[in-house]
Amino acid sequence: MHDLIIIGGGPAGVASAIYSVRKGLDVLMVTKEFGGQSIVSDDIQNWIGEKHISGVELAEKFESHVKSYDLGIQEGSKVVDVRRQGSNFEVEDEKGELYEARAVMIATGGRRRRLKIPGEDDFEGKGVVYCSTCDAPLFDGKRVVVVGGGNAGVEAVIDLLPYADKIYLLEKTNKLNADEESKNRILHNDKVEVILNSEPKKIKGDKMVDELVYEKEGEERVLNIDGVFVEVGSVPNSGIVEGLVDLDKWGQIKIDSKYGTTSEKGVFAAGDVTDDPYKQNNIAAGDGVKAALSAYSYLQDLE
Amino acid sequence: MHDLIIIGGGPAGVASAIYSVRKGLDVLMVTKEFGGQSIVSDDIQNWIGEKHISGVELAEKFESHVKSYDLGIQEGSKVVDVRRQGSNFEVEDEKGELYEARAVMIATGGRRRRLKIPGEDDFEGKGVVYCSTCDAPLFDGKRVVVVGGGNAGVEAVIDLLPYADKIYLLEKTNKLNADEESKNRILHNDKVEVILNSEPKKIKGDKMVDELVYEKEGEERVLNIDGVFVEVGSVPNSGIVEGLVDLDKWGQIKIDSKYGTTSEKGVFAAGDVTDDPYKQNNIAAGDGVKAALSAYSYLQDLE
Repeated sequence: MHDLIIIGGGPAGVASAIYSVRKGLDVLMVTKEFGGQSIVSDDIQNWIGEKHISGVELAEKFESHVKSYDLGIQEGSKVVDVRRQGSNFEVEDEKGELYEARAVMIATGGRRRRLKIPGEDDFEGKGVVYCSTCDAPLFDGKRVVVVGGGNAGVEAVIDLLPYADKIYLLEKTNKLNADEESKNRILHNDKVEVILNSEPKKIKGDKMVDELVYEKEGEERVLNIDGVFVEVGSVPNSGIVEGLVDLDKWGQIKIDSKYGTTSEKGVFAAGDVTDDPYKQNNIAAGDGVKAALSAYSYLQDLE
Repeated sequence: MHDLIIIGGGPAGVASAIYSVRKGLDVLMVTKEFGGQSIVSDDIQNWIGEKHISGVELAEKFESHVKSYDLGIQEGSKVVDVRRQGSNFEVEDEKGELYEARAVMIATGGRRRRLKIPGEDDFEGKGVVYCSTCDAPLFDGKRVVVVGGGNAGVEAVIDLLPYADKIYLLEKTNKLNADEESKNRILHNDKVEVILNSEPKKIKGDKMVDELVYEKEGEERVLNIDGVFVEVGSVPNSGIVEGLVDLDKWGQIKIDSKYGTTSEKGVFAAGDVTDDPYKQNNIAAGDGVKAALSAYSYLQDLE
């Protein structure tokens, strides 16, 4: 029986592990791997304090910081369920192993919806990117295409306006599905060209992205670009606590953002799996600290 | 006229500067110095990703990251007032210089109340510490005194229980002013000795703290200890926005913790100056990012 089981090894999970162990709690971390979603980034420029760091390097920093402490780590295991067991919680992983604790921290992050077209995997981090807030400045003076004409796509275009020379916005339906206000900001800008009724088919390049092949009116066309911003939605990894805690309509865990508490006593959450509006590494880390300190305080009160 | 003036150069100010500049905003940062309150720490062990870093090194990382971007920096200036000027804001520094912007970010932090006794300044970071969450693990197997018998002092004792061999708790009145529950956790522990009606007078040592001299019943007494945890309260640096935004009864700026917004449109806040319950570097950085993204969104809507 542990005090706290932390699920996830991204910035939220790592931050909550470090703080809760330092508070003297008996902690078990269960994670498939360390680093979180940005592990695929070649060049992270907005991890506060580091001008440039790769996703792999940041993951290594996280892992070595956590492992300098005395806690249980079940690495390589994906959690499939979290349930109440009397006044405690039982966590089950994909191998059927069971772990028990008095409190749990959900730090399982989210995942971006992918285009699922040839070249997307090969060029991820080599021109294919999933975070416009993070990566827009990397495309200074470049030509890019944003795929997805919802709010996220239009906001990605706005993020790119101060940087890119040319921005295509590709949408598969016959109109942009974004706020009027956001749309107005991009529609009258010479840099921006909206391409409707179009579907991406293939991403090509040598070492970096060179082309996006798309289909419009039954024929294949080509955009010569340096970057592909994929903005077709994201999904929180909250399935393991469905029915246990309140989720919002997007499946995000509803939290009190001051404390990282959820609708269920003893269940805490931080990072991209929550309904915090902005998904960023530093936010996840800070909220992981908050949630760990709340979990500590909760466990103190139990005694 | 700037888009955003950021006041403060600690983790909240630095994080919000980096994010808002990357969003293409015209940013001016006004700060006395970089690094925030933890600049005095010899060994920070809980800045996520770094096993050990000194406060000075962390401040240097912050400063060099910010300065790699193109923004205005007014360094060495303390802000004395922030006021509305029509639909904009005017910021005045101690030299009487005026700066104007469409939005402001208050990231001025807080300051710990000090004992104001001889030796406190000399041994700060050399045994005299102000953050039990951060520094309790440094006193593994050591003898310490916590000064202050309110909730913060009693919680510092609880933080020290897994680590220190002996913990004195010094309080100047005739009783501890903390929750019953917290008191109960420490009063029955053999490690803990409460000393009431006592006032600290002097901190002594060679390179590191060795002794706390205190007065009880008119006579001077000595505790042989390795650490002094000062827990006599803290004060948010919110005076510059008094009357402009809502403060709580401790003078902390009330914020919506999901967004970093305050009661006044166009005024954002993050870090220790806010009513977020936990005061930690990573929380301040994460909340600085949130508030910057909210400020960006606010400025977009203005247009």
